[in-house]
Amino acid sequence: MFVSHRARIEIIGLRTLPEVRRGDDLARLVIAACEQEGVKLQRGDVIVLAQKIVSKAEGRMLNLRTVAPSPLAQTWARELGADPRFIEVVLRESRRVVRMSERVLLAETRHGFVCANAGVDHSNVPKSGWVSCLPLDPDASAQRLVRAIRTRRKIGIAAIICDTFGRPWRMGLTNAAIGTAGLRVLDDWRGRRDAHGRVLRATVLAVADELAAAGGLAMGKNAQVPAVIIRGYRFRAGKDSAQKLIRPAAEDLFR
Amino acid sequence: MFVSHRARIEIIGLRTLPEVRRGDDLARLVIAACEQEGVKLQRGDVIVLAQKIVSKAEGRMLNLRTVAPSPLAQTWARELGADPRFIEVVLRESRRVVRMSERVLLAETRHGFVCANAGVDHSNVPKSGWVSCLPLDPDASAQRLVRAIRTRRKIGIAAIICDTFGRPWRMGLTNAAIGTAGLRVLDDWRGRRDAHGRVLRATVLAVADELAAAGGLAMGKNAQVPAVIIRGYRFRAGKDSAQKLIRPAAEDLFR
Repeated sequence: MFVSHRARIEIIGLRTLPEVRRGDDLARLVIAACEQEGVKLQRGDVIVLAQKIVSKAEGRMLNLRTVAPSPLAQTWARELGADPRFIEVVLRESRRVVRMSERVLLAETRHGFVCANAGVDHSNVPKSGWVSCLPLDPDASAQRLVRAIRTRRKIGIAAIICDTFGRPWRMGLTNAAIGTAGLRVLDDWRGRRDAHGRVLRATVLAVADELAAAGGLAMGKNAQVPAVIIRGYRFRAGKDSAQKLIRPAAEDLFR
Repeated sequence: MFVSHRARIEIIGLRTLPEVRRGDDLARLVIAACEQEGVKLQRGDVIVLAQKIVSKAEGRMLNLRTVAPSPLAQTWARELGADPRFIEVVLRESRRVVRMSERVLLAETRHGFVCANAGVDHSNVPKSGWVSCLPLDPDASAQRLVRAIRTRRKIGIAAIICDTFGRPWRMGLTNAAIGTAGLRVLDDWRGRRDAHGRVLRATVLAVADELAAAGGLAMGKNAQVPAVIIRGYRFRAGKDSAQKLIRPAAEDLFR
């Protein structure tokens, strides 16, 4: 018996996107890169975009020369050996400071994501002295991409905006979803049965984060591949916000 | 200009493995499934195996009828509404109890992984009243697979044993690496430069976990696809243990 590869999934990194500037139309750039690289967008594709290019397109870059640090930012910048204006931006982007230590400023962003420096970042920013902040509404950014592809290519896709986050318990960063459109972000197997007919319990898979992580494999970390297409993964269509991936503090028994 | 797809990665789920039994040779089963499904193993492939089939092959299944619960297990089983023998197995598999609440028993396993029920699991177990425990040495399990493929197919691959873990801050489970062979589990970009020549800081990617998560996309949760081949990802060869993915408590500022 020969079995066909229904379970085959492809991760296609796009490498010909130009340096993204404020106001750029990301859907147009993604479509152009696909054409240049011989990739035909298909119904059911998941497009994963690195947060950095979304922030660039949406004007979420900030010149540190325009930032006046508060006394708190100045104090912590001394502790961390960091630029006080950078710390000031982090505090402005934070809804809550989770941990302030000599080694990291862990914060909850305005969206509710817990990450180092509230997602504010120096890397892969073309102009010296500038930093990038997370998109104000990454779900909306993902929705715009899905709508534009539907309008221009007449196909339904899903989109994920991702960033690399550190995790408790485990070393290293992994890509995680901060904005989503077109799919259910959690795949709930509770009540379904395993291969032996036993009802599954406590099994909710964070598929949007697994898709973001898979995209991360093609992205690397030097911004050469800021957009990735994942093809062949049968996601469940839906309108979930990436906010559904945030574990409410009251029920977070893993902390 | 037409650009070739050097950044293309494939996730190939194997769906013809038989129910794995104690003593089974997993390398032989994986090779047979590849042949049946028309997949030719290649140098540089990463084979991701679900913990469950490794535990089955290595005899890490336990009949609860052989387990006498301690008073502590009996007390907590009442709180959790669980089988006291199940809780007893969880306690025996634990090096440290991280949290005992009405909703979850979060434990550090003998290997140092922090997860619900110390990885002890009822699901996808063929015999009623039995549970599976994590492999005693998942790195050794991965190494055996790498060695067997080298011997039988004369090619170098990497192997990852994975399990689905809950995470702090974020909802849902994702696949994570608990045993590794043949690759470096962390990709350290510190000191390397971004696309604009700026030296990257604090950028260590947990590639083994991203590979495990990508494998998870093809696996689902009902054990129909317990082995996955990831092709086209250029990992760095190495001899890392998955233990390198455990963040030492003393420097875990994310908790």
